[in-house]
Amino acid sequence: MLAEIITIGDEILIGQIVDTNSAWMATRLNSVGIRVKQISSVSDDADHILTALAETHKRADVILITGGLGPTKDDITKKTLAQYFNVGFKQDDGALENVRRIFARYNRPLLDVNIKQAHVPENCEVIPNNNGTAPGMWFEHEGKIYISMPGVPFEMEYMMDETVIPRLEQRFKLPKVIHRTILTVGEGESFLAERIADIEDSLPAHIKLAYLPKLGQVRLRLSGYEDAGGTLEQEIGDYYKLIVDRVKNVVVAEDDVALEKAILNQLTERGQTLSVAESCTGGYISHLFTRHPGSSAVFFGGAVSYSYELKESLLGVKNETLWQHGAVSEQTVTEMVEGALLNFKSDYAIAVTGIAGPGGGLPDKPVGTVWIGVAKCGKTVVKKFTFGSKRLQNIERTAIAALGMLNTLLQDVN
Amino acid sequence: MLAEIITIGDEILIGQIVDTNSAWMATRLNSVGIRVKQISSVSDDADHILTALAETHKRADVILITGGLGPTKDDITKKTLAQYFNVGFKQDDGALENVRRIFARYNRPLLDVNIKQAHVPENCEVIPNNNGTAPGMWFEHEGKIYISMPGVPFEMEYMMDETVIPRLEQRFKLPKVIHRTILTVGEGESFLAERIADIEDSLPAHIKLAYLPKLGQVRLRLSGYEDAGGTLEQEIGDYYKLIVDRVKNVVVAEDDVALEKAILNQLTERGQTLSVAESCTGGYISHLFTRHPGSSAVFFGGAVSYSYELKESLLGVKNETLWQHGAVSEQTVTEMVEGALLNFKSDYAIAVTGIAGPGGGLPDKPVGTVWIGVAKCGKTVVKKFTFGSKRLQNIERTAIAALGMLNTLLQDVN
Repeated sequence: MLAEIITIGDEILIGQIVDTNSAWMATRLNSVGIRVKQISSVSDDADHILTALAETHKRADVILITGGLGPTKDDITKKTLAQYFNVGFKQDDGALENVRRIFARYNRPLLDVNIKQAHVPENCEVIPNNNGTAPGMWFEHEGKIYISMPGVPFEMEYMMDETVIPRLEQRFKLPKVIHRTILTVGEGESFLAERIADIEDSLPAHIKLAYLPKLGQVRLRLSGYEDAGGTLEQEIGDYYKLIVDRVKNVVVAEDDVALEKAILNQLTERGQTLSVAESCTGGYISHLFTRHPGSSAVFFGGAVSYSYELKESLLGVKNETLWQHGAVSEQTVTEMVEGALLNFKSDYAIAVTGIAGPGGGLPDKPVGTVWIGVAKCGKTVVKKFTFGSKRLQNIERTAIAALGMLNTLLQDVN
Repeated sequence: MLAEIITIGDEILIGQIVDTNSAWMATRLNSVGIRVKQISSVSDDADHILTALAETHKRADVILITGGLGPTKDDITKKTLAQYFNVGFKQDDGALENVRRIFARYNRPLLDVNIKQAHVPENCEVIPNNNGTAPGMWFEHEGKIYISMPGVPFEMEYMMDETVIPRLEQRFKLPKVIHRTILTVGEGESFLAERIADIEDSLPAHIKLAYLPKLGQVRLRLSGYEDAGGTLEQEIGDYYKLIVDRVKNVVVAEDDVALEKAILNQLTERGQTLSVAESCTGGYISHLFTRHPGSSAVFFGGAVSYSYELKESLLGVKNETLWQHGAVSEQTVTEMVEGALLNFKSDYAIAVTGIAGPGGGLPDKPVGTVWIGVAKCGKTVVKKFTFGSKRLQNIERTAIAALGMLNTLLQDVN
């Protein structure tokens, strides 16, 4: 069973927004055994949309389309689909009722353009939209299924979870697709490949190994695509174990989890806690932890201490340390991380201070200079890093390096 | 001049990573007048890559390809390109020197697979990679240009900025593409459309208006595609001014900036400062501010107070307030925001406390219940919101709502 995703909108093609919908949809589709063959982003242009629909029709069984369903003139998906299927329009009572309900909730007058949102191509079945006024649409045409959804992520996500995925599962006997991922930290892609070359060479054709590098981490992913005889899970499991055993020293998690989630899991298991003191990452490390459900059980929070004053008042960094060594120094990061441990009363703490850039560099401390400290009771480890010139990359690399250091400290049982 | 982007990698099609490269590249291409016709993500499969190359060849003048250039076996872009162009391989001395330099820097032994990274198709010109071992490649074939770059964002970004964009600009006389964006907050897409319907109707064919809604905000974007007679800038400027004047009450920024950046700009102009006290957003609001260069001039930082203890010790929230009214209450958020103002000594403060979910809901305070406070000396505004059940959405919506409230307070000159 092959699917393709078409995202419609000039805003993607001029780079104004990042298409996060496709990855989300692909994850859901894969989880029920539907492979995504291609993702295409096309412009708000009828001819271009028609071409894309015709091309995907040749390759895929299910075509998922997002975007271009708003009430305004640049939203042309609906009429282009009617043109593609060569049908007229009908009014859908459920969709109209939904529009009325939403406008009543917000106490806003119902405009003509909003009522028109309940007009849909004759050949579609409406997919309810609980979070917005634009209805989703399910079409069947020449043996293929076309599903059109709004581009607003939480409207699309609701439709996928509530209607699209359950209905696809009901409709098709879906094959099994199995992915298993190993998260490693601290070893480059080519060294990992060299260490497991013989295992990789021995993989059968229906099992693939992929290396997914990302700032100081590499994910190894085994994917199996055919379940002849129901042995695929076992077979992948065996290869998985071979690889984990071989590169054990750099494995952080035997699961497709984010690095910070692997750390949260370890802390949760041990019943231990964490706090942070962030300067140059400005809240990003805290955000990484707190985006995960259940993080409040182990993550106390901490200080985003951008200014000298907050480094002193929240973390107890000494005024003379700041003025003598500067905010970006071994001494300051040591006082920050030990201050966090002491003031926030957690078992572990992370502190970072650095020059994220693009401004603020000094001759002896160029942009990209970062000090990171991690600590537990009785042990503090601090380290200097020299990253590059780009602010967002420096923030991200600092966070990953800090998580890597904390993960190492967590393994230290002395 | 039309470009297409092809991103190669199973990790995109199974949703393991979000393709952020394409938006970044599209922004850069558009800024020099190259329109992106389509973005296609395809699998690590030679036939599929060959088909995609052939399809883009028909539509675009420049084809940018990212991904699949790593040293491991699942990286097949290079050999597939050689197959597509029907050429053999050569060793590139510059690329080999670059690989050696990088391995020397990290003090790692050079492996065979790494040396092979300097082998490139005969017909390519190497694009230097300052941040990694995989060389970029520039091909010219049947009147079209093909550019292959690594999928690692900061390697690709360096190549685009240093080589690809300058060379494309040198090579072609590029037409002008002008985008101008207005950021509005607090009015729905269809209401905005109704208010400016007559202006939209009067736009000439070469100027398009798009509505880009995103959680409580709508961006209005005017795009002009032909500069007959050099008057396009003036022409777009006139329509832009008409729209801004019409919807002035909801305009936050006359520029394509993020909401928090518009706030930072206002504070910078006034020489005023900001701090935050974040509970349920867990550092996300701080991260939004601090990802922007220059934020340290106005953003002091603040507290990520996930635990009761930190709400008390960092913000001075009274113990009895927490036990009597709970952490998610009007009383607590008021004490948080006033505590931030007092303790962190900023001109403005934001505080948020809520139940992000999925756990932690109570009968009278379900998941999605959020209290937000904004304050300046002498004035505190607090408001209750009821969002949905999804954690990341609740975090994001809370942040946007808080920024909207702060923006309103900033306009209040009393």
